[in-house]
Amino acid sequence: MSRIDDIYQQIAEQDRPEVFITLRNQEGVEADYRASIAAGGPLAGIVLAVKDNVDVAGLPTTAACPGYAYEPTDDADAVAALKNAGAVIIGKTNLDQFATGLVGTRSPYGAVRDSRRPDHISGGSSSGSAVAVALGFADIAIGTDTAGSGRIPAGLQGIVGIKPTLGVVSTGGVVPACASYDTVTIFAADLALAERAMGAMARAYAPRPFGPTTLFAASEQPTVAIPAELPELDDAWRAAFAAAVTRAEEAGMRVKPIDLTAFLTAAKLLYDDALVAERFDAVGDFLTAADASAAGVDPVVAEIIGHADRFSAVDLLRARRRLTELRAEAMAELGDADALLVPTAPCHPTVGEVAADPIGVNSRMGTYTNFCNLFDLCGVAVPAGVVDESDGTRAQFGVTFLGRAHQDAVVADLARRFTAGSTTVPASWPEIADGDVGIELAVFGAHMRGGPLTHELADRGARWAGEVHTAPSYRLVALDTTPPKPGLIRDPADGRAIDGEIWSLPASALGAFLAALPAPMMLGKVELSDGRWVIGFGCAADAAAAGERVDRRRW
Amino acid sequence: MSRIDDIYQQIAEQDRPEVFITLRNQEGVEADYRASIAAGGPLAGIVLAVKDNVDVAGLPTTAACPGYAYEPTDDADAVAALKNAGAVIIGKTNLDQFATGLVGTRSPYGAVRDSRRPDHISGGSSSGSAVAVALGFADIAIGTDTAGSGRIPAGLQGIVGIKPTLGVVSTGGVVPACASYDTVTIFAADLALAERAMGAMARAYAPRPFGPTTLFAASEQPTVAIPAELPELDDAWRAAFAAAVTRAEEAGMRVKPIDLTAFLTAAKLLYDDALVAERFDAVGDFLTAADASAAGVDPVVAEIIGHADRFSAVDLLRARRRLTELRAEAMAELGDADALLVPTAPCHPTVGEVAADPIGVNSRMGTYTNFCNLFDLCGVAVPAGVVDESDGTRAQFGVTFLGRAHQDAVVADLARRFTAGSTTVPASWPEIADGDVGIELAVFGAHMRGGPLTHELADRGARWAGEVHTAPSYRLVALDTTPPKPGLIRDPADGRAIDGEIWSLPASALGAFLAALPAPMMLGKVELSDGRWVIGFGCAADAAAAGERVDRRRW
Repeated sequence: MSRIDDIYQQIAEQDRPEVFITLRNQEGVEADYRASIAAGGPLAGIVLAVKDNVDVAGLPTTAACPGYAYEPTDDADAVAALKNAGAVIIGKTNLDQFATGLVGTRSPYGAVRDSRRPDHISGGSSSGSAVAVALGFADIAIGTDTAGSGRIPAGLQGIVGIKPTLGVVSTGGVVPACASYDTVTIFAADLALAERAMGAMARAYAPRPFGPTTLFAASEQPTVAIPAELPELDDAWRAAFAAAVTRAEEAGMRVKPIDLTAFLTAAKLLYDDALVAERFDAVGDFLTAADASAAGVDPVVAEIIGHADRFSAVDLLRARRRLTELRAEAMAELGDADALLVPTAPCHPTVGEVAADPIGVNSRMGTYTNFCNLFDLCGVAVPAGVVDESDGTRAQFGVTFLGRAHQDAVVADLARRFTAGSTTVPASWPEIADGDVGIELAVFGAHMRGGPLTHELADRGARWAGEVHTAPSYRLVALDTTPPKPGLIRDPADGRAIDGEIWSLPASALGAFLAALPAPMMLGKVELSDGRWVIGFGCAADAAAAGERVDRRRW
Repeated sequence: MSRIDDIYQQIAEQDRPEVFITLRNQEGVEADYRASIAAGGPLAGIVLAVKDNVDVAGLPTTAACPGYAYEPTDDADAVAALKNAGAVIIGKTNLDQFATGLVGTRSPYGAVRDSRRPDHISGGSSSGSAVAVALGFADIAIGTDTAGSGRIPAGLQGIVGIKPTLGVVSTGGVVPACASYDTVTIFAADLALAERAMGAMARAYAPRPFGPTTLFAASEQPTVAIPAELPELDDAWRAAFAAAVTRAEEAGMRVKPIDLTAFLTAAKLLYDDALVAERFDAVGDFLTAADASAAGVDPVVAEIIGHADRFSAVDLLRARRRLTELRAEAMAELGDADALLVPTAPCHPTVGEVAADPIGVNSRMGTYTNFCNLFDLCGVAVPAGVVDESDGTRAQFGVTFLGRAHQDAVVADLARRFTAGSTTVPASWPEIADGDVGIELAVFGAHMRGGPLTHELADRGARWAGEVHTAPSYRLVALDTTPPKPGLIRDPADGRAIDGEIWSLPASALGAFLAALPAPMMLGKVELSDGRWVIGFGCAADAAAAGERVDRRRW
C-alpha cells in the first residue's frame, strides 16, 4: 500500500471530518507525491497540510468562514517555498475562524477535537493542522501564530510547533489576523523535520531575513529563565513543569527564575486594548457587511472583532507605547538569559468547558503564549511528557523555549538538547533559509569539541558541523602557546591528512573571533580531503618554523 | 577677549532676540567653559545651543509654547552625552512650536529670521539652533527632525545638519513631535565637527545602536540616485542642483536618475492622513485643555494638531500599511544606489510669503525632506553654493545625501567627498559612538589605497584609517599569486619596519573579507611600531618558505 493510500485510509478510519475544510482527492495527491519523489528536493515526499487562512492556488481559502471564502490564484509565499522544496499538499485544515482563538472550537466546520481524547479541545487556532499531524494525516502542517495559535495546539497534541521571529517567513498570501504580529508556523511530530521545513519556508523573500549576525546554536552553558510563579497552570501540571525544568538542567542549562509580571500584563493589551483594532482592520469590513448567519460567522469571533473598531488612532498609539514600556521591563527581567522556558498551555479543557465560558477559557489558554509576538520573541514548542488528569485520562504536557528576535536557531538548539540531549544538527534552519549566511571554519586544536577553547566558538553562536580531514598534505607543529596549540602547516612533500572539525559561523561572529585571536594563530584557506578549501587555522610563518613537528593526525 | 566674551558680544550686536528662548547668563557659561577646557574631552570648549524641545536640567523646556513650559530636573540623554564629552551649553533656542513646521515663524517668541537676509525665513522647526550656528552664537546646536526640521534650516542657513537613523540617538528627554519618526540632530558650520558631535551624542543608550554590520564609509565608486524630475524646485535653484550633481560626479560618484513618485506620495501621509494622530498623542491633551491665547499657542500649530484626533485606530493602521507599500516601491526604485541626492529645500521664502500662506508654503518646503524618516532613511545636509535670486540677493543652496537605515557613515562620507573631495576621517561617527564597533586591519600589499584589491575593503564599508609601520621585525616575501602579493613574515633577527595601512571594519565585513580570502593569504596578529598588535595580513608558512625575500619597506 502506498504512503498516500495509507494516509487516506487513516483519514477514513479515524472519522475526523472536522480536521480538513478541503481535502484534496487522493488521485491528485498521489500524482503530486510521485512527481515529488521523482524530482527529489529537501522535502521530497513530505505530506503537507495547510491551515485554511493560508492560500493554496486552486483550493478555496475560507479562514473557517464560508461567506468569506475566495479562490486564490497564487500560492502563499510560504506554501510556494515548501512546494518548491518537494512538499505535497493534501488539503486545507480547520481553524478558529479568522485565526481568532486558541481553542479550536470556533468554526462552523465543527469544533476540532483532541487527537487522543475527543471530548477535549484540540487547541487552536491552528486546530486542524495540529491534529492532522498528530493523527498522521500529514507529516508537516502550516499553522499561523499571532498569540499562540502555532504553539497551544502543538502542546495539547504532543507535537512540535515552531513559531519564527516576526518577518523571517513571508506572510504574503495569509489572511491577516493582527498583521503586525502574525507569523507562519510549522507543526511536525519531530523537531528535525520541523526545522527542515522552517528552513525551506523561510527561503521565500521576507522583510526581516536572517543576516550576518544570526546565531546558529545556543551557547555552551546556556541560561534559561523560568517563571518564578506559574499563574493559571493546572495543579496536576505543576509537577510536569518541575520535571521539565529538571530535564533542562540535566541537559546542561542553568535555570534562573524571573518575575513574569510584565509579560503577563502585555498579554491583556492584545485583546482588551486598542491592539485588537488590527483584527478589525483585517476582516472588520467583511464582518460589518455580512449576514452573520448566512456567512457562517462564529458568534464569539464576531463579538471580539465586531467591536474592535471602537478605538481611536491615539488609543492605538498609547497601547503601543505601553507595550514598548512593558517590553523593556520584560527584557530587563530576562537579562542575560538565553531563553525563557514556559509551559506551552496551562491546562487542557474539554469542549464543554469552552462552550460554557468561551472567552474566559480561551483567555486562560494564552497565559504563556500571548506576549510572545508582542515582544518580538521566537519560540519552539516541544512535548515534555504526560499528566495524569483527575478524570483518569492523560494529557499531553508541552513546554516552549522562547528567544529574542532572530535567535530562532538558539531556541531550536535548546529544544533539541531538551528533547534529544544532543546539539548535533546538519544545519540550523536559518542556515537552510539562507545558504550564504553560514561560513565554515576548520579547527584542529584547542577549539575542537571538548577542548579548552571550544567556548570561543560556541559562545558566539557557532554550530558544530562535523568532523573533517585535511587533504593529505599537512602536518602539525607544536606551538609555544598557553594552552598548547598545534600549528597546521601545508607540506605536500611530507604531509598527511589531519583530523579536525568544521564549525559554521555567521560573518560577524567570524570577524569577532578573528579579532580576538592571539598571535601566532592565523586564519586562511585550508584544503580538505574532499578538495574543498575552507577557512581554517594556520599559524605565523616564524612560529611554524620554530615549532617542533608533531607526528600525529590529531592534536 | 575670551571666546565666550566674543560670543556674547556677537549676540548683543546682532540684535536677534528671537534666536534664544533662554540665554544663560554669561558668567555661568564662562565658568562651564573654563571647566570644560580644564577637563578636556572630545568636545572640550565647544559651545552648544539646544533646541527648546530638548531638556536641559535647570532651564525651562517650552517647546516654544509658554503655557506648556516645565522645568526638567534631568538633561535629555543627548544633552547629557554632549556635556559629558565637554560641550558647554549657552542656551535654549526658538523653534516652530512643538516642532510642527519647517518655516521658523510659528512661535510666540518671534519668527526666526534668516541669518543673512532678515526678511526671509530661517527655516524650521529647528530655527533658532540653525541661526545660532550660522551667526556664530554657538559652535554646534541640537535640533530635532521628524519631517525635515534638522535639514531645512541647515540648507537655508548654509550650514551642515546631520539627521541620524531613527533610534541611534536617544530621544529620552525630548518633547515628542511624532514619536515614531522623531530624531535628534546636530548643526555645525563644519561636517567634521558635526560628526564628532553626533558620535558623542550617540554614545547615550539608544534603542537601535550601530552594530557589527555597520558600514563606516561609502564604497570606492558609489552610485548616487538623483530625482529624474524636480518638483517644487525654484527655477533659479535648478542650475544650482545641476551644478551639485556635476560636483558629485567630479567627486567620483556615479549618478542615476530615479522616479521620486513613491517618495513624494509618502510625504502627504505625514500631515494629511492618520499619521498626524501622533502629534495629537504628543501634545493634543495639552492643546485641548489650554486657553490658547493665554498659553501662547500658535494658531497654525493649533489648527494642525488640534484636529489630529479625528482618526480611528483602523485609519492609522491603513495609513501605516500604505506607507509600508510606498516604502517598498521607493526602495525598489532606489535599487543598488548607495544614497539619494536631493536639494535640501526647494526655495527660500520671505516671512511675508509664509504669513500669506502658512500651510501651503510650509508643505512645499518639505518636498525633499518629509519622506525621509517615514522611510527609515538617514541624511546629511551640506551647503552646495549660492543662488542669485530675482530680488538681487543671494540664497544659500544646500543638498542632502540620504541613505538607508544605519548607513549614517556612508552618507557622511559622501557628503565629505562632495564638500572636501576627501574621504579621510579620523573615525566615522558610528565608530565614535561605539568604540567596540570598529576592528582594525593592517594591510601591506594589493589592498593598500590605489592597489588592485582596495575595493575588497572599500566595498564592504571599511574606512581607511591611516598609514602605519610594523615593529622593526618583519620582512616581505614575493608570493606566487595573481595579482602579485607580498607575504609579511615576522623575523626579529633580520627584520625591519614595513609600511602598511590600517583600515577599520565592522565585524561582519571582516568575517566576509576573511571568508573570501584566497590561499596562501592569512590573517592574524601583527605588531605595529607603537607596540600594538592588530589583525593583519600574513601568509601560509609553506608559501612564506617558498617566497623570495623582497628587500624593501613598501610593496
